[in-house]
Amino acid sequence: MKLNELGLLVVISGPSGVGKGTIRKALFKIPDNNFCYSVSMTTRKPRENEVDGVDYFFVSKEEFVRRIEENKFLEYAEFVGEYYGTPVDYIEKNLDAGKEVIMEIEVQGALKVRERKPEAVFIFIVPPSKQALLDRLMNRGTEKTVDIQRRIEKAEREYHLAYKYDYIVVNDDVANAADRIYAIIRAEHAKTERSIHKYYKLMEGKTNE
Amino acid sequence: MKLNELGLLVVISGPSGVGKGTIRKALFKIPDNNFCYSVSMTTRKPRENEVDGVDYFFVSKEEFVRRIEENKFLEYAEFVGEYYGTPVDYIEKNLDAGKEVIMEIEVQGALKVRERKPEAVFIFIVPPSKQALLDRLMNRGTEKTVDIQRRIEKAEREYHLAYKYDYIVVNDDVANAADRIYAIIRAEHAKTERSIHKYYKLMEGKTNE
Repeated sequence: MKLNELGLLVVISGPSGVGKGTIRKALFKIPDNNFCYSVSMTTRKPRENEVDGVDYFFVSKEEFVRRIEENKFLEYAEFVGEYYGTPVDYIEKNLDAGKEVIMEIEVQGALKVRERKPEAVFIFIVPPSKQALLDRLMNRGTEKTVDIQRRIEKAEREYHLAYKYDYIVVNDDVANAADRIYAIIRAEHAKTERSIHKYYKLMEGKTNE
Repeated sequence: MKLNELGLLVVISGPSGVGKGTIRKALFKIPDNNFCYSVSMTTRKPRENEVDGVDYFFVSKEEFVRRIEENKFLEYAEFVGEYYGTPVDYIEKNLDAGKEVIMEIEVQGALKVRERKPEAVFIFIVPPSKQALLDRLMNRGTEKTVDIQRRIEKAEREYHLAYKYDYIVVNDDVANAADRIYAIIRAEHAKTERSIHKYYKLMEGKTNE
């Protein structure tokens, strides 16, 4: 029995190239989960196979800008002329329904989310060693040396930001890392500050559960 | 890979009659655990089948009093003429060896431990309803009504102290509750404040792990 019936917003972040996406996918394979993926909104055109409402919510620039003005994004950013953002209403609806909303986001975006949602759970994924991260960044396709160098510098700046997160999870093995995130979610539900009000009500007989 | 290599002191507590002992036993049945039970010290005589160093450390009153003076207990109490206490050296030795030291203790003792060991993890076990607790207290042997009444009053005072703990775990099902405690232990190891120093060393290549 969970004392906290609302879902948690779980923010999975970490330096570029650390394997956030792979871990997120492994997390959704855990049996009997009630996870919900935080779908981003974008103004870029859908690629082949991409489904509206699954991969992204695809909207026009006018629509996106209107939503910015209405404060309807947890965070947003512009990237090569297109907008990308996290719509807040979709998240709220799913949290209220008791789902754990899983967000996968790069470091700068995560820190913006923290400002608006301090009660969310912030998890920083790290490589098992610096060499493992360098290997991943260098083997990631056929990029120019200058681009790889820029990426390594970005990752180095990012990995120092671990202290701003609640938890640090090592990506030594994808299934292990996903399992550790699941343990964190269960533990967070049991935290006294999230569960005590429901508990006192229970002991006063004010609920039937 | 765990970033925090020291063991955690995990304090399992809660109102009388809530089933702390049963949950603790279920916890030790989890496969591949590295748990160590915090063995108490007492001046009372061993009962049949009780083994020194397993059920209790059995010592003389002189020895116990000497240890009190040397500040060698995390907490101690006197009960019908005999002393009971938690020896600190046994706990430290096992934490340094990377074991999770599990302590099962009543509410007053747990709060004393908190004063000396604020970095320990404090878990409050609660019944699934007030009625469930009353049922347990009333069906616990063949005691006099006045004793049962006293126990109920004690449990009522105790259950209000949940707010002093880090986590609240509902004893709806023993295996579930033990499993939730295991999740809490895993999550606590991943907490940033416990793991960040090791992580920064790792990224500077100052460790081989």
